[in-house]
Amino acid sequence: MGGLLSDPEVEAVWVSTPSHLHCEHVAQIAGASRHAVVEKPMATSLDECQRMIEACAKNNVVLTAGGARSFDPAFVAMRSVIDSGRLGRLGGLAAWAYTGWILRPREPHEVDVSQGGGTVFNQAPHPVDVLRLLGGGLVRSVRGATVEFPLAGRPCPGYINACLQFEDGTPATLMYDGYGYMAGWELVPWGETPARLSAAEGPMQYRKALRAGTADEYGGKERLRFGSDRGESRFPDRDGNWTPMDAGIVVAACERGRIRQSASGLYVYDDDGRHDELIAGLGDNRSNEVPELRAAMDRKPSLHDGWWGMATMEVVLAIMHSAAQAAEIRLSHQVPVKR
Amino acid sequence: MGGLLSDPEVEAVWVSTPSHLHCEHVAQIAGASRHAVVEKPMATSLDECQRMIEACAKNNVVLTAGGARSFDPAFVAMRSVIDSGRLGRLGGLAAWAYTGWILRPREPHEVDVSQGGGTVFNQAPHPVDVLRLLGGGLVRSVRGATVEFPLAGRPCPGYINACLQFEDGTPATLMYDGYGYMAGWELVPWGETPARLSAAEGPMQYRKALRAGTADEYGGKERLRFGSDRGESRFPDRDGNWTPMDAGIVVAACERGRIRQSASGLYVYDDDGRHDELIAGLGDNRSNEVPELRAAMDRKPSLHDGWWGMATMEVVLAIMHSAAQAAEIRLSHQVPVKR
Repeated sequence: MGGLLSDPEVEAVWVSTPSHLHCEHVAQIAGASRHAVVEKPMATSLDECQRMIEACAKNNVVLTAGGARSFDPAFVAMRSVIDSGRLGRLGGLAAWAYTGWILRPREPHEVDVSQGGGTVFNQAPHPVDVLRLLGGGLVRSVRGATVEFPLAGRPCPGYINACLQFEDGTPATLMYDGYGYMAGWELVPWGETPARLSAAEGPMQYRKALRAGTADEYGGKERLRFGSDRGESRFPDRDGNWTPMDAGIVVAACERGRIRQSASGLYVYDDDGRHDELIAGLGDNRSNEVPELRAAMDRKPSLHDGWWGMATMEVVLAIMHSAAQAAEIRLSHQVPVKR
Repeated sequence: MGGLLSDPEVEAVWVSTPSHLHCEHVAQIAGASRHAVVEKPMATSLDECQRMIEACAKNNVVLTAGGARSFDPAFVAMRSVIDSGRLGRLGGLAAWAYTGWILRPREPHEVDVSQGGGTVFNQAPHPVDVLRLLGGGLVRSVRGATVEFPLAGRPCPGYINACLQFEDGTPATLMYDGYGYMAGWELVPWGETPARLSAAEGPMQYRKALRAGTADEYGGKERLRFGSDRGESRFPDRDGNWTPMDAGIVVAACERGRIRQSASGLYVYDDDGRHDELIAGLGDNRSNEVPELRAAMDRKPSLHDGWWGMATMEVVLAIMHSAAQAAEIRLSHQVPVKR
């Protein structure tokens, strides 16, 4: 980190270190007067989030809570349709996701909840951030549950559900199943391709290896890194068609219509039926992230600032607390979507 | 009713009168020593349910809480897979439904919540009964929300969501959107056929007629009745493939697999992948209802007895109360699935 922070060419640093180190690393980066983008989860506690925000403010640098699906062009476009008012006011939201998060090779810290690991810390931020983006940001209460299904090497819950309610009363439902039995692509007509069916074999074999205690977690992880020799072949969805990913299928219910993702943009339903509205650059899931950082560095308002990231973190922690206490949790650190 | 109840050939009566008359009608039927099957919703209050149960017990006749999707062969089969233990214990449940309930022709009582009308009373019993069947029956708490989107002639909420928790901790999520913008069949690869796309035109026109105040509710209802001249042409799903209906897509998450409905039976997912397990008689949604009544009349244990129906009613009412109070509701009238 020392070399990086003394290089005069480095303006900003993307923090994708283990979650429990985010706070310390952002403080170092801010101390060196560099801007920071921090991957989800922003940190492992609200206190850490607060310290990161303060460190950046004190050093007059930008903090962007990055790595979330709420940057995806389709969700940004959904938010625009809601804002346009053409379907009337928003009334309800639902997100459900089926992924294989738990079956990807993992280092121990990634599945250790005490270090900010596990599916809830690492994946709940996706639907939570998207629901907050679409619902206006201000979640009032959370009733959540988490389930851990036994699997060697994965000592963390991998199944999450929650009912959120926003300040204006809008309800949202969230279901996330990261155990890799079902896949999100099974829930869209264009999802089941020979490439995806065949790609599903890998995770299934990995589950067997985990059960047998023969999984090569470090080696497997190394092979899946960006720039590894497997390259893009690990993306069977690169056929140009969107399929549900980390945030899942997300449906916004408005007074006079519905909105959800289609293969190449959005399905917008209104009194005249279903319309498929194309979105340019849909395949590039990160296309809004760097521009937002750049704008923030130019002191323009940034949606995903530290306070936004902390508010998402509060919802994620509330899901865990609600699950532990079997009770609804009221929130107090929420911030609205900046218009 | 008098003629029906004095006919010596009549052993049992199927009650599909308006919901707020169920209690009175069951009391009459029981008083005439006839068995009764009552359509969902069983009644409009727990007190009515209790009186119906007592009237039948006093007259030594059977009361079956009928009309629910939990009779569907596929859900009965799902329960069997769970019971078999081949996927380990159940850990989570999710149901999400997209229907056009609100766009079918309706008499005024059907959309009047004070008379047991509206989507919550009439449709929530489907996923609730199915989730109770799969989860073992004993719901501990409900956090729900209901949303009413403005539509002339439909003064009732048509959008429902809820997080349930069972006594053993198993969580369940429920989402029901009856406004007919999206359709359940859009969420299965085999769902989108020319017949279904074309059948979607009717409800869409009906929404426009409702908005314009020109809908012929009584005439429309008459045409849709069983035995009307439109006959089976109103069932575009009669291509032999199941598509999500009133209870929606329902996924049971177990320790070592998942279960949900396929086009012709169940998808059972385990460590070896997805298996399509056929179910005979899947198309006949009522094939378990009459046999259960017959068995009950022979004094065999009946799952859908009055206490079962009352327990489902309690969950449905709790969704309404939770929505009104923005608070979680604890339940006290739940009964287990009889084995």
